[in-house]
Amino acid sequence: MSVLHRSVWCPIILALAATSASAIDLDQATVLDLSHPFNSQTLYWPTSPSQFELKTLAHGQTDGGFFYSSNSFCSPEHGGTHLDAPIHFAEHGKTADQLDLAQLIGPAVVIDVREQVAKNPDYALTADDITAFEANHGKLAAGTIVLLQTGYSKHYPNRKAYFGDDTPNDASKLHFPSYGPDAATLLVDKRHVAVLGVDTASIDIGQSKDFQVHRIAAAKNVAGLENLNGLDRLPPVGASVVALPMKIEGGSGGPVRVIALLPPK
Amino acid sequence: MSVLHRSVWCPIILALAATSASAIDLDQATVLDLSHPFNSQTLYWPTSPSQFELKTLAHGQTDGGFFYSSNSFCSPEHGGTHLDAPIHFAEHGKTADQLDLAQLIGPAVVIDVREQVAKNPDYALTADDITAFEANHGKLAAGTIVLLQTGYSKHYPNRKAYFGDDTPNDASKLHFPSYGPDAATLLVDKRHVAVLGVDTASIDIGQSKDFQVHRIAAAKNVAGLENLNGLDRLPPVGASVVALPMKIEGGSGGPVRVIALLPPK
Repeated sequence: MSVLHRSVWCPIILALAATSASAIDLDQATVLDLSHPFNSQTLYWPTSPSQFELKTLAHGQTDGGFFYSSNSFCSPEHGGTHLDAPIHFAEHGKTADQLDLAQLIGPAVVIDVREQVAKNPDYALTADDITAFEANHGKLAAGTIVLLQTGYSKHYPNRKAYFGDDTPNDASKLHFPSYGPDAATLLVDKRHVAVLGVDTASIDIGQSKDFQVHRIAAAKNVAGLENLNGLDRLPPVGASVVALPMKIEGGSGGPVRVIALLPPK
Repeated sequence: MSVLHRSVWCPIILALAATSASAIDLDQATVLDLSHPFNSQTLYWPTSPSQFELKTLAHGQTDGGFFYSSNSFCSPEHGGTHLDAPIHFAEHGKTADQLDLAQLIGPAVVIDVREQVAKNPDYALTADDITAFEANHGKLAAGTIVLLQTGYSKHYPNRKAYFGDDTPNDASKLHFPSYGPDAATLLVDKRHVAVLGVDTASIDIGQSKDFQVHRIAAAKNVAGLENLNGLDRLPPVGASVVALPMKIEGGSGGPVRVIALLPPK
């Protein structure tokens, strides 16, 4: 082992609690990628004027005798695994580049509503669901990153299954689960959580017409994370999340790479 | 303090070493943003066919009585603070979406060549510079994220000062510092580092014509981080870095948000 590694370095480590003696090195932690890739199948809102486009600028041997590949791309901000910055639904809310990154880094809880969703694809998380979760796992602390697991990432990128409808340019017949307004009010205004994340296309349900959850979150500069992937790999509590968005100046959101860090078993 | 926070959560913490008793909670750590914003001033290679473009799709009150803002954007992969995936210069190298994120998370070292650069804007880091750094700070461990500090981020986004030339569509007269081939060979082939990062536009110097550093790194699936910002805020050793790129399927690189985590003083 190198001198540097033994004596000077400062690796990220995880512990069961700040006061725990069982600290572990990040090198031992499992890194889970919660982001879908951006490609021609990336899902955008039905009314989106465009999709993800990748254009090849170069791909092959150069005159200099070496290989070179380079592309350009275009995308609406709100598609694929992406951030909702508060300004998306609040005129004076923070833009994507203004969000304090510390808000997007921290302990995560995963609230699982797959049973409710199996009976009702329009299921909206309730305040009662949250108090039931807290009865089992403890009261949510301020700054928590809340992840809602509906199981819908298994449908991605099948538009009809994921959105509940695939009529082009029509967002009136969407059916998918997400947060409900009373749950959002409890999480944002009472628990002061930092982020609302979900494995569907929106932090409001597909049938929402007034986007109350977005508005409740945006009003308090709470960020949204939409189209998350594979939340079934996370425990209800114990994971930490790091969500780092593209730094689009003035952006209302944009592509975000989201990871969960799990301690070794 | 909530029950959850006391008994169950698993926050990320930092320690001076994995065996240190002085572990600290991430909530106490300083999060430094090492990324420039994407905007109309974002710098691309002089021969780039396009720049960053943000198009407003909506911004204002809706018929529903609430505010709504949304944009789309276009960008070449290689501009602003961005990732170089190995396929950028290696035909069979990993693409942006294929990189193991664990490679982009870890302890960082910052090698400071500002003194050399003050005398020579074409300065290329040498193997001797690295062995001198190691004499002071210990041998670099495998998996290290190497950050080269030239001081050039202070010039960004002034194209003439940052690239050393602002002739449109001409990359032949660029003058800025970066890694040299013998340094890259030592770092990649002997030390097995994970990432080469720099606060200039390229991991090769501006006058490079054969991009040897890119090719040495790409051949071993070492990732590049270019146009980093504000490395003067980091210590030579002791920071951890998390670099999360946009997950562009088949991408040769792309926008990346890079943070450094510092323990409290």
